[in-house]
Amino acid sequence: MNLILFDRDETERPLPRHDPRARHILNVLRRTPGQTFDVGLVNGPKGKAELVAFTDDVLTLRFTWQDSVPTQERITLIVGLPRPQTARDILRDASTLGASALHFVRTDRGESSYAQSTLWSSGEWARHVRTGVEQAFETHLPEVTHGRSLADVIASLPSDSARIALDNYESPVRLGECQLLVDNVVLAIGSERGWSPAERARLRASGFRFAHLGPRVLRTETACIAALTLVRAQLGLL
Amino acid sequence: MNLILFDRDETERPLPRHDPRARHILNVLRRTPGQTFDVGLVNGPKGKAELVAFTDDVLTLRFTWQDSVPTQERITLIVGLPRPQTARDILRDASTLGASALHFVRTDRGESSYAQSTLWSSGEWARHVRTGVEQAFETHLPEVTHGRSLADVIASLPSDSARIALDNYESPVRLGECQLLVDNVVLAIGSERGWSPAERARLRASGFRFAHLGPRVLRTETACIAALTLVRAQLGLL
Repeated sequence: MNLILFDRDETERPLPRHDPRARHILNVLRRTPGQTFDVGLVNGPKGKAELVAFTDDVLTLRFTWQDSVPTQERITLIVGLPRPQTARDILRDASTLGASALHFVRTDRGESSYAQSTLWSSGEWARHVRTGVEQAFETHLPEVTHGRSLADVIASLPSDSARIALDNYESPVRLGECQLLVDNVVLAIGSERGWSPAERARLRASGFRFAHLGPRVLRTETACIAALTLVRAQLGLL
Repeated sequence: MNLILFDRDETERPLPRHDPRARHILNVLRRTPGQTFDVGLVNGPKGKAELVAFTDDVLTLRFTWQDSVPTQERITLIVGLPRPQTARDILRDASTLGASALHFVRTDRGESSYAQSTLWSSGEWARHVRTGVEQAFETHLPEVTHGRSLADVIASLPSDSARIALDNYESPVRLGECQLLVDNVVLAIGSERGWSPAERARLRASGFRFAHLGPRVLRTETACIAALTLVRAQLGLL
């Protein structure tokens, strides 16, 4: 963790000693009373926290927040529901790379049982998102959905967005050469077995352009990082 | 494995049943005698193999090779020796993304004990490289070294290479806007704690330009993927 995230209500009471953040502050950062460390308010400003005191039960922290709230880019990533281990990596890395929304969708060629993973039902997914945002030294958590249909997610997209679907088979252009004329971007990446003809038709009809990531075949998690990287570079961010 | 790699001498004798590739052919690809699958000759052509027959001990395969050998880009990645789990990911993903050489170097701020990991002493590292190349559906294995000094690796670089060092603190330009005038590229990424002043001076004196990957702080493995992605995009490959 480069920065430790807190929800607003958590800043108004002592931090339980068993909270992983408390252990991180004492055992990894090795802070002692009077010392400070970097914090962020979820979807709010960054700041500093001072470790005022600690007991066997709780840490008392004092927060000081910056005046300004970081801006967030508008980059939506749609991914065909992957196997849980792949989803964990994407949740973390796409959050680090500044995705503002992550939709893990059911697709025609995807494995629908992946939606039943405890990753989703236990709420574990939220931990990977926070880890990714803390790594980035940022505060905005992306919106995350899973198990919705591709059609449903497409219908809910902002109308002013630039839309690109990755497809190794039907794409005339490299993603690296796709011009983006607006800074609100939607990237769609299929499941391991790719898009069905019906999905390709739906994406096209919904304003998606198709692009590819070159002849080398990437793992889905690597493709997500590569695609977000190229979009951020196009937006002048990286 | 999208394609299964074989060394030349391995193609001239039956494949032992206990070889992981044999188990993959029978249990994952579920090939039966007469069926084929995609293969590659290490640093050579791609082709097809037919499962001719199998016993409890061996698989008999018949190989057919394409006439041409895939070309390989010349992209060298220098990374400050990372913790072993990070190195595993970089070995695999940088191989998938077409790095032709990977040098894990000792740096002033790196943890020198990482060089003693069994990842390196057991030869395990080679497995991750092959996995990455097989994922890419390619045949060229990158050259890999570990534990050499940064100075030593710099001295061995091809003289005609474009050289870029990533540095979040001293870089005036984004990697995404770095023009590459030759297709022989060297990327240097520091250890977790970054470059020392002496290393910065050495890199500069050796013709490295400095570039950054934007304000969001990336894990080393994510930075490697992002940097290789941007270089490949600049080379018109992705």
